[in-house]
Amino acid sequence: MHRRSVAVFDRFLSALGAILDKAEAHCTARNIKPEVILAARLFPDMFSFTRQVQLACDFAARGTARLAGVEPKGFPDTEATFAELKDRIRATRGYMGSFQPEDFAHAETREIRFKAGGRDMVLPGEEFLSFYSLPQFFFHLTTAYDILRHNGVELGKRDYMGAP
Amino acid sequence: MHRRSVAVFDRFLSALGAILDKAEAHCTARNIKPEVILAARLFPDMFSFTRQVQLACDFAARGTARLAGVEPKGFPDTEATFAELKDRIRATRGYMGSFQPEDFAHAETREIRFKAGGRDMVLPGEEFLSFYSLPQFFFHLTTAYDILRHNGVELGKRDYMGAP
Repeated sequence: MHRRSVAVFDRFLSALGAILDKAEAHCTARNIKPEVILAARLFPDMFSFTRQVQLACDFAARGTARLAGVEPKGFPDTEATFAELKDRIRATRGYMGSFQPEDFAHAETREIRFKAGGRDMVLPGEEFLSFYSLPQFFFHLTTAYDILRHNGVELGKRDYMGAP
Repeated sequence: MHRRSVAVFDRFLSALGAILDKAEAHCTARNIKPEVILAARLFPDMFSFTRQVQLACDFAARGTARLAGVEPKGFPDTEATFAELKDRIRATRGYMGSFQPEDFAHAETREIRFKAGGRDMVLPGEEFLSFYSLPQFFFHLTTAYDILRHNGVELGKRDYMGAP
């Protein structure tokens, strides 16, 4: 369970960090103000790029903590630069790294209580990971990628997949 | 393993079907030609909405078959209307429904051989599902959603999650 959650979040957050490097380089090369990309969104009532990255980090950190049976640590959403977003990713990966595989010994059946869309939810860990945590994580990760692609940042599927 | 693959694909493809209904209704209400939305993309060298739906179906169908140890059935990519895309989703769900939980008895350790980005890959089933199949599936599902949102179709996270 540890590998199916923490290792997956970690691999794809690492890929997101490299994507941020490319986005930043794109801004420099094209003389685009970073805050333009950071505030970009696909539709006025959708979240900005910055918020998509923060949410991807949150779903990873919170999912990890909940599966391990501890109250998730909160991260303030104060990032305003690419460097700060990369720090957020690093901090999230470090937080996940503080959990050990044995913390997930009973994760499949652990009763996970969380709020989703303002509603109180209870799911066993197995269902929480497969039907909530991973789908939410990949939603925000992909939307962050899509915002950059829509703005002309040169990325490919391999950047998203983070594959070697 | 069956539940973590087939049941997840099925839940989210069902949600995608309902999303297609909303997209079609949006076209009717706003007098938008369906082919405009079906051909929409977030950047000129990205795949169209239609192709994103086909790929989400493909990653679900192929992932299921490979985990069950059989050669994936191919589906011709001929869909040109919302109705045909909904048929594709139905056919994909029907195909996945032809597999039984016992077909996945050795799926975690099964050696999966597949092509990714033109390269021959071999992964044990567990890694294939967590690090390849699910991430690819959610990528195309989310990008389909993002294309519709970008074009003004009124959708929310609940539509994506397919939650009751």
